[in-house]
Amino acid sequence: MLHAMGTPSRRGFLAAMIFLSSSLFSVGAWAQPDPLPSWNDGAGKTSIIAFVEKVTREGGPDFVPVEERIATFDNDGTLWTEQPMYVQAAFILDRAREIAKDNPDLRERQPYKAILESDRAALAALGEQGLADLVAATHSGMITTAFEKTVANWLATARHPRFARPYTELIYQPMLDLLVYLRTNGFKTFIVSGGGVEFMRPWTEKAYGIPPEQVVGSSGKTSYRLDGDTPIIEKLPTVEFIDDGPGKPLGINRFIGRRPVFAAGNSDGDLQMLQWTTLNTGPRFGLIVHHTDAEREYAYDRTSEVGRLDKALDEASKRGWLVVDMKRDWKTIYPPRR
Amino acid sequence: MLHAMGTPSRRGFLAAMIFLSSSLFSVGAWAQPDPLPSWNDGAGKTSIIAFVEKVTREGGPDFVPVEERIATFDNDGTLWTEQPMYVQAAFILDRAREIAKDNPDLRERQPYKAILESDRAALAALGEQGLADLVAATHSGMITTAFEKTVANWLATARHPRFARPYTELIYQPMLDLLVYLRTNGFKTFIVSGGGVEFMRPWTEKAYGIPPEQVVGSSGKTSYRLDGDTPIIEKLPTVEFIDDGPGKPLGINRFIGRRPVFAAGNSDGDLQMLQWTTLNTGPRFGLIVHHTDAEREYAYDRTSEVGRLDKALDEASKRGWLVVDMKRDWKTIYPPRR
Repeated sequence: MLHAMGTPSRRGFLAAMIFLSSSLFSVGAWAQPDPLPSWNDGAGKTSIIAFVEKVTREGGPDFVPVEERIATFDNDGTLWTEQPMYVQAAFILDRAREIAKDNPDLRERQPYKAILESDRAALAALGEQGLADLVAATHSGMITTAFEKTVANWLATARHPRFARPYTELIYQPMLDLLVYLRTNGFKTFIVSGGGVEFMRPWTEKAYGIPPEQVVGSSGKTSYRLDGDTPIIEKLPTVEFIDDGPGKPLGINRFIGRRPVFAAGNSDGDLQMLQWTTLNTGPRFGLIVHHTDAEREYAYDRTSEVGRLDKALDEASKRGWLVVDMKRDWKTIYPPRR
Repeated sequence: MLHAMGTPSRRGFLAAMIFLSSSLFSVGAWAQPDPLPSWNDGAGKTSIIAFVEKVTREGGPDFVPVEERIATFDNDGTLWTEQPMYVQAAFILDRAREIAKDNPDLRERQPYKAILESDRAALAALGEQGLADLVAATHSGMITTAFEKTVANWLATARHPRFARPYTELIYQPMLDLLVYLRTNGFKTFIVSGGGVEFMRPWTEKAYGIPPEQVVGSSGKTSYRLDGDTPIIEKLPTVEFIDDGPGKPLGINRFIGRRPVFAAGNSDGDLQMLQWTTLNTGPRFGLIVHHTDAEREYAYDRTSEVGRLDKALDEASKRGWLVVDMKRDWKTIYPPRR
């Protein structure tokens, strides 16, 4: 059979080679498609493309082997909108309202009373311990699969107060372009966020193409038990790890075990991740999203309670990090409405 | 130019299609290569192949989408030899000897005295706290990059007491076959081990093809600081997480965030990982390596201090886990000497 097929196969092979080489020539004659179509042309876009081209040029002085191409992205304010409050904070408040609805006794007690009455002063007075208790009350005492469903259900119905769209639609199109561009060039993209890891994993794959196993975040302790023949992991009301500020390089070291080549953030909570990534030998890229667009999104930096960008902004020029001016550099902010 | 090329391209395209289809037919006429060449034919090998074929058969009732194909492997005793003592324990003893050599004061103090004199009774009397102190003394007070080098240097020179080969050569060829077979079929392979994550990551990619970001293990706390313009992560003498027993499903939940479809272990420390993997809806595979080969490796199970297999062996038949009989099922144990 092989012998009988020898002649047509060989003839076919030569034809295929001719076909392939002519196709390659045709592609070469066409203009390259824009790898970052939602970015305006300018120094920022140019520097990203120049970086990716140099680290992927085999045999070049700045070549980075594919397995070392680790890129880490903060989430809140870097991949999606974090104003007027962190999305997870909105989730916590809604969860607390639900809990109070089911437990009338709680309605007259803090922090539930303040939440139900939208009493900002009382909420601010809760302090760190009060907030930690609130997180514990809304994030523990349930099994992981139930929490996952709660998050998914909430995201399906909750709407952003200003844009009236689901939060998972308020993701930045230019950053989606960047994620795809990096992955097309062999980068493995990770989220490294101060947000709860179990709050993010149910939706990051669909929203960003980042699978659960590439999401690093804050976490609470958990416990395992066998309930009959059903294994259960329960969420406990104790903080395990805060993946913010100096916690980010520690989280990267613990979860990824390699130093990134590329890191993107937008606030002082990302300062140490940017240092850990860029203050290293070899080519490295640090990027800060600067929120400068009050019209299409929000404008805030040094004095904002949410996503404050102060020290990292000062350090950016010293370290050569790209500061993206959202208003100037981004052609669009969000993906089109579905 | 495009127009001029139209005719030959189109002709080439048709020829390429003919070539491709004839190639496909030829491949179909050949025998499939054995995907597990180091495994003897038998029920074990057959059941692994049947499982992989059914979960990858698109449109079949047991099809598992590629992103859900998570496979987790214990390391000690599952991927490499753990007798006569865990490799990391041999590392700790050698490190302690080095430390005592550099610090004469320590030589007369425990546990160093017992280690230098190979005094097994005194070592056994150290207890849990003594052992924890020993781990702390040999694994902390240095920066992560220095520890990585220490591990790599030790592995380059240390030899197994019986086989006189580097530990990283005492990995199981049949398990390497299995890792490659699963990856070829779209599985993402992870290590989930009680061993220290920073003890494993320097060599798992080369030995098993498993990159650092797919290694889950036990860890100590760390701290971050900027030393001038050099970011540093220091290893602290405090346990952060023990990835063993019930810690394994917790580690999987925290680091991977998906339930595996396939899990392999060899001891009671893997019991909960096997439960978490297999007691779930949909097709799941649990595998236990049973050490039955005193001649080519070691024979041990219910009463062994290292890698005890007792409860998990009892549970295997009830749960339908494959118990691999090393002596009967494995054609070879280790890769050939280099």
